[in-house]
Amino acid sequence: MQFNEILNYLNNYEPGKDIELIAKEYGVKEIIKLASNENPFGVPPKAIESLMQNLNKAYLYPDDSMIELKSKLAQKYKLKNENIIIGAGSDQVIEFALHAKLNNKNAFLQAGVSFAMYEIYAKQFGAKCYKTQSITHDLNEFQKYYNQYQEEIKVVFLCLPNNPLGECLNANEVFEFIKEVDKDCLVIIDAAYNEFASFKDNKKCLKPCDLVEKFENVLFLGTFSKLYGLGGLRIGYGIANIQIINALHKLRAPFNVNHLALKAAIAALDDEEFIKKTLENNFTQMELYEEFAKRNHIKTLKSYTNFITYFFDQKNSTDLSEKLLKKGIIIRNLQSYGLNAMRITIGKPYENERFFVEFEKVLKE
Amino acid sequence: MQFNEILNYLNNYEPGKDIELIAKEYGVKEIIKLASNENPFGVPPKAIESLMQNLNKAYLYPDDSMIELKSKLAQKYKLKNENIIIGAGSDQVIEFALHAKLNNKNAFLQAGVSFAMYEIYAKQFGAKCYKTQSITHDLNEFQKYYNQYQEEIKVVFLCLPNNPLGECLNANEVFEFIKEVDKDCLVIIDAAYNEFASFKDNKKCLKPCDLVEKFENVLFLGTFSKLYGLGGLRIGYGIANIQIINALHKLRAPFNVNHLALKAAIAALDDEEFIKKTLENNFTQMELYEEFAKRNHIKTLKSYTNFITYFFDQKNSTDLSEKLLKKGIIIRNLQSYGLNAMRITIGKPYENERFFVEFEKVLKE
Repeated sequence: MQFNEILNYLNNYEPGKDIELIAKEYGVKEIIKLASNENPFGVPPKAIESLMQNLNKAYLYPDDSMIELKSKLAQKYKLKNENIIIGAGSDQVIEFALHAKLNNKNAFLQAGVSFAMYEIYAKQFGAKCYKTQSITHDLNEFQKYYNQYQEEIKVVFLCLPNNPLGECLNANEVFEFIKEVDKDCLVIIDAAYNEFASFKDNKKCLKPCDLVEKFENVLFLGTFSKLYGLGGLRIGYGIANIQIINALHKLRAPFNVNHLALKAAIAALDDEEFIKKTLENNFTQMELYEEFAKRNHIKTLKSYTNFITYFFDQKNSTDLSEKLLKKGIIIRNLQSYGLNAMRITIGKPYENERFFVEFEKVLKE
Repeated sequence: MQFNEILNYLNNYEPGKDIELIAKEYGVKEIIKLASNENPFGVPPKAIESLMQNLNKAYLYPDDSMIELKSKLAQKYKLKNENIIIGAGSDQVIEFALHAKLNNKNAFLQAGVSFAMYEIYAKQFGAKCYKTQSITHDLNEFQKYYNQYQEEIKVVFLCLPNNPLGECLNANEVFEFIKEVDKDCLVIIDAAYNEFASFKDNKKCLKPCDLVEKFENVLFLGTFSKLYGLGGLRIGYGIANIQIINALHKLRAPFNVNHLALKAAIAALDDEEFIKKTLENNFTQMELYEEFAKRNHIKTLKSYTNFITYFFDQKNSTDLSEKLLKKGIIIRNLQSYGLNAMRITIGKPYENERFFVEFEKVLKE
């Protein structure tokens, strides 16, 4: 059977063997997962409570207007419900946006290394990908590429802070850059980790209401998968002016977000104690990762997220990752991003402690 | 901002006011929802149990290989894991399939009235829609259209049984029809309600293993939203030969199905008592709906599903629906399908009884 041409440029599906199963195969009893930037404290207690109360309603289709969560977010961000679209993860909002803007005659621009899904979705719609030479966000370079390929580039991604590297631009630099971008080019600000950056340094804080007020071509993305501890439920959102949100809604299928995710997200937004604990633990423990890196001569970037990236010169990150796996510690090897590096999610104190002990041994092997 | 041309042909999003909220506005205390073909007995007890056990894991991304559910389905249908793709509702599998096959140079064929999402997804990929004159599935007409527009038609939908009308072709007729379709044309068999049809009449039973064995161009769709009582969790599946499944996987984003849905689906498949109760109640109660129709001179089609469709001559279905809503009974008005008709989900005995009492009053008004 023949399929659309775009499929020729997409990778064949490889159903990745569950990494936890692999670790179990190695006979490890207690596995520590520091690989996917999930919240080490789990699901927020208020969300658990809400899930318990709503389980028996899971036979009913979700409320497709999602009015309750939209109102909650609109209140939080001082915007209108009409400025918000909810997705099954902010991933899905990226898909809507690229489906709306990209095609086989145009292109998008991103940092040299950034969230892998940008390119994957763009390819599904046949568009070309431009990446800056710098792996991190260098706005001069963004400007240079943008000027050079302005006719083609219809979407610019800014991942703030950047996954999988952790660096983050200041909000004022971002505003200056967007001013130079044509109004017909959509600037997507992926703020999946921005709560972490804002907590560490207020200059990194990107307020959706400021962005939407100043720019008609910005889409801000937020998620419940990281700080809010709901990665398994698949829920995130996009915020933009009403014209953009209406366009994305045309590509949203009804009932795209499940009932329990909608309920849990509302409760998670209210769990201030949980949020405070997560943020404080993250940056206190981050310091230990920085000290460990220094002590072991590992290069790293300053991270504004809930993970840290270790770069290696002599050692090979694939080899190191496998050795850690055999000890029951799962981290994210970044070879698939073309980097001899690993990304480690900041865990709970005992998890991080075990990482340090075991990784020190691995490095000495 | 300019968007891709396809958006011009898609409807603007109207965030439908929650129908239960409307009923509440009318001051109705107890609302009976017979509108969305959900399981009137709710979430299967075994699924509830599984959800309870897995709530606290909802902070972790789902297992993207979905190996546990795939194995379970493969065993049930006597196929391989590689023949299966899991979607956030079978809807999402339709999206993958149309994204893979359709574009602005081709078309698809469906019955005159069938599930609305076929056309909506097809439009997202720019394709043209052919519908038979007959509102129900008339295979002679399908054949006629297919022969006439064979060059263009790359997807044929058979909804068996058909939503929102309830009729169902026999499996042997379906096999005969598919034999006449070119191998490069994908035949999608939407079997969302096929468990109901099979229970009522074995001749309607479509076995995915027979289809996959005989035809390289068939995609069979199943769902957990109807019989299995998990509509709010968004989970369904597609079954086809490996070449098709691999193609669809290229368009599937990682983590497209949430963790709790995966766990609940596995448990639901095992809840035989719940399934038996649902099927028996459905067809015993269906008889009462047929008798009611006869008594009140309402036209209906024989239904092989968990709903029944009432057609009206003199009365207007929008008017009737609104009157029912004021009494706290929600059914699906079919005016948007171009029919002066309503679709009523078969409920529990006390729900159906209340429908009969109230609708009889409405008809006499």
